[in-house]
Amino acid sequence: MTAHATEIRHLSAHEGETVTLTGWVETTRSHGKVAFAVVRDGTGIVQCVFLKKELPESVWEALGDLTQESAVRVSGTVKPDDRAPGGYELGVSRLDVLSLAEDYPIQPKEHGVDFLLDHRHLWLRSSLQRASLKVRHEVEQAIHDFFYENDFVRIDTPILTGSIGEHAGTLFATDYFGENAYMAQTGQLYVETACPAFRRVYCFGPTFRAEKSKTRRHLTEFWMVEPEVAFADSDDNMRLQEAFVCSIVERALERCQEELEVLERDTSKLEVIRAPFPRISYTEAVEILHGKGSDIQWGEDLGAPDEALITEDHALPVFIYNYPKQAKAFYMKENPQDPRTVLCNDLLAPEGYGEIIGGSQREDDLDRLRERIREENLPEEAYGWYLDLRRYGSFVHSGFGLGVERTVAWITGRHHIREMIPFPRLMNRLTP
Amino acid sequence: MTAHATEIRHLSAHEGETVTLTGWVETTRSHGKVAFAVVRDGTGIVQCVFLKKELPESVWEALGDLTQESAVRVSGTVKPDDRAPGGYELGVSRLDVLSLAEDYPIQPKEHGVDFLLDHRHLWLRSSLQRASLKVRHEVEQAIHDFFYENDFVRIDTPILTGSIGEHAGTLFATDYFGENAYMAQTGQLYVETACPAFRRVYCFGPTFRAEKSKTRRHLTEFWMVEPEVAFADSDDNMRLQEAFVCSIVERALERCQEELEVLERDTSKLEVIRAPFPRISYTEAVEILHGKGSDIQWGEDLGAPDEALITEDHALPVFIYNYPKQAKAFYMKENPQDPRTVLCNDLLAPEGYGEIIGGSQREDDLDRLRERIREENLPEEAYGWYLDLRRYGSFVHSGFGLGVERTVAWITGRHHIREMIPFPRLMNRLTP
Repeated sequence: MTAHATEIRHLSAHEGETVTLTGWVETTRSHGKVAFAVVRDGTGIVQCVFLKKELPESVWEALGDLTQESAVRVSGTVKPDDRAPGGYELGVSRLDVLSLAEDYPIQPKEHGVDFLLDHRHLWLRSSLQRASLKVRHEVEQAIHDFFYENDFVRIDTPILTGSIGEHAGTLFATDYFGENAYMAQTGQLYVETACPAFRRVYCFGPTFRAEKSKTRRHLTEFWMVEPEVAFADSDDNMRLQEAFVCSIVERALERCQEELEVLERDTSKLEVIRAPFPRISYTEAVEILHGKGSDIQWGEDLGAPDEALITEDHALPVFIYNYPKQAKAFYMKENPQDPRTVLCNDLLAPEGYGEIIGGSQREDDLDRLRERIREENLPEEAYGWYLDLRRYGSFVHSGFGLGVERTVAWITGRHHIREMIPFPRLMNRLTP
Repeated sequence: MTAHATEIRHLSAHEGETVTLTGWVETTRSHGKVAFAVVRDGTGIVQCVFLKKELPESVWEALGDLTQESAVRVSGTVKPDDRAPGGYELGVSRLDVLSLAEDYPIQPKEHGVDFLLDHRHLWLRSSLQRASLKVRHEVEQAIHDFFYENDFVRIDTPILTGSIGEHAGTLFATDYFGENAYMAQTGQLYVETACPAFRRVYCFGPTFRAEKSKTRRHLTEFWMVEPEVAFADSDDNMRLQEAFVCSIVERALERCQEELEVLERDTSKLEVIRAPFPRISYTEAVEILHGKGSDIQWGEDLGAPDEALITEDHALPVFIYNYPKQAKAFYMKENPQDPRTVLCNDLLAPEGYGEIIGGSQREDDLDRLRERIREENLPEEAYGWYLDLRRYGSFVHSGFGLGVERTVAWITGRHHIREMIPFPRLMNRLTP
C-alpha cells in the first residue's frame, strides 16, 4: 500500500484513496472500540477514525497516549462524511507519533486575556485566531492588489528617521551611531516626495506610537497603508478611499466566507457597503452632536463617543471632512473657503468601529507650510527636504492612511484590535 | 475646444485628439520660432512642441521663463512621432504654469554620491532611480503574488521585540515604557511559531542591523521576505527557493522591459535563469577555493571574495549548503550525517552579486536547541516562547530569508544597493 502524501485542503481530490497527512492533534476521544482524533495540518482540520479491530495493537496504544498538539503522521482512507468539518473523514490505517506534546497550556475553557497574550505564540493555533489572521492576510493582499491594479508604485518609507512625524511627544527613540533616531509614525511625508517620480504611490508597513493608551483601539506598533496621489484634491481623495474600502470589503466577502463563518460575523452588514459613502462636514457633525445632547465645542477634535453618535445613524462608513485647523496635523491644506478649517477627512466605520482612515489634501504653499511648522514649534531644519517639495514644482496632492488592524477588526466584527495582529505590542506588552 | 485630461501612459488612445496633461518640466530648448519642453507626469515622459506663430504671446513668454521641475498643465494635440520617447509628441495649444521651480539642485551633470544622497527626495525623480525603484515595486508585488498563489499566509512579525535575534552585538535599542526593546533583525523566529496554525507562512518587512559596515552591499535598514514551511526539510527548502527566485526573475523580465532598457541591463543574463540551480556543499566549496589558490580553512564562513570565486564559473545562482555549525546561527538543525555541519544553505547570485538568500532547516529537538542557545551565551529566558515550539508538537520545518535590495540590485544590474531602496539608511546617513 502506497499512501499519497497530501494536505487536508486537497482531500476532496482523493475520495476513496489512501492518503498520508502530517499535522497536530487538536482533540481525541475514545468509545471502547472506536476512537476519534481531530487533526489540524494548517490547511484544514479532519476527523480521523480509529477502529480497534482493524488496527495493530501498537497503533491503538499510541493513540491512547496522544496529547493535545502532538505532531503526527497519519495514513488512512478518505471517506465523505456530511457531518465532518470539511466534509471528509479519514479511516485510519497507520499512525506515527512524530513528537508527543507536553501538557498544552491552552485548554478548551475560558482563559484570562493576559494568559492568552503571554501564550500568543501558541494561541495563534486556535480557530478564532486563525480565522482573524487569515482575514488579515486576505485584506493585505487585497491592499497590494488594489494599488498594483490602479498603477500605484509601492515606495517603502524608512522606519529610522532623523526628523519627526505628527506627534512629537509619542516617539520611540534609538541611538543611531551617536545620533538620535526616531521610529516612524507615518511614511506620508516620504511618499509625498515620490509623487513627482511616479504620480501615484503608496507605502505599507509598520508604524510606531509611544502612546500611553490602553484602549481596545490602540497598539504601539501597527500596520498602515498610505497612498498619495499627485494632482488629486480632497474630493478625489475621498473618492479613492471609497473605491479602496469597497474593494477590500468585497474581497473579504468573496474569499473569506469560511473564516467569517467561524467568527460568526453578520456578513449582511458588510454586503451593503457600496460607494458613495455619506459626507458630513465637521461643522455639520458638531450640529448633529448638539442635537443629540453633546456639549462639544466647535474646534475640538471628535472623540470616540462623538464618532459613535454620528455613525449610529448609518449603515455605511461616514466621511467627516474639513476639521478645524487646530485639531489636525500641520501639513494639511488650509481650506480657501474657510481658513479656520483644513481640507481633510476621517472615515468612520459603521457598527461603532470608528476611525479607520485619516486623509487630507496637503499644504502645497511653501510659505504657509513653513508658517504652520513654526506655529507647531516643530524643528524647521528637520523638514527642509519636505519643504523642498514645495520649492521645486509644487503641486496639488492628497493622500490618506488606513489602519490595517482597525479595518480587519471591523471586517471580522471582533472587539479588540490586539487580536488582529500576530504579535500585538501594547503599552505593557513587548513579548512574546 | 474641450481638452480631455489624461496621462502620458494613455496618449496612444488619444491620437489626433486634444488632451491636457499635468506634470513637471524636465528640460526646455528653443530654436527661435519653435521650442520644446520634455514633460514628465509620473506615468511617462512626452516631448511638447511649441510653435511661436500658433501660440498667444503670453504662452511663448511663460515658456521662456520655465525652469527645470516646474509644475505645468499643458494642452495640445497628440501626434505620433517615431523619434519621440513613448512614440508621441504634443503639439501645444495652451500652457499653464502651476508652480515655478526654484533653481533645481540636480543638473544633467556628474554629482557626487553624497550630494545625491543628501537630495534623495529629489534624486528619486531621475530616470535611473525611477527605473530601479519601479523594478523594486514589481519584485515586491511578485513576492506577494508568489506566496499568495502558493497558499502561504502572511504573518506580520513585530519590529519591537524583547528578545534578541541573530547578532546580539548589532541591535538598535529603544526605551519601551521603562523596558529595553530591540528592533528586529529577522521575523523568522516569529513566523516559525505560526507554522502550526497555517503550515506555510511568510513575513515581509523592514529589518535592522546596527552594523558598522560601509560596503556597497550593506544597509542598516533593509527589507526581507522570510517564508517558513512546516514538514519541509532542507532539500524542500532549496527547491522552494529555486521556484521563488525564478518566478521573480521571470516577472521582472516580463513586466519591466522598459525599465531594464533604461538601466541598460543585459537581460540575456537573466533569461537563462532556470531551475535547478547548482548545489555545492560547503566542504566542496572549500576544495574548489583551494584549487583556485585560496587559503580558506574548513570552518571559516565564506567571505564576499570567496563567493565571487565560486560563482564566476556559473551563469545560474549557486547553492552552497551545509556550512560548519560554528559559522551559522544557533537555530539551524544539526546535520545527522555530519554533526560538525548544519542543514542550511546560502544562495549566491551570479555576476558577482553574492548572497541573496540564507536558509536552513530549523533545529526541532528541544534539548539540542537549548544547548545551542547556552553555547552562544544567549539569554535563555528570552527564548522561552521559541523553545515552546519544540515542546508542543515539534515538527520538521525550514525557511529562508531573501534580501529585497540585493535581489533588485542583481536584477537591475546596478552596483550599489543603496539605490535599490527609496531612502537608504547607512551607518553615516539617517536623512532625508
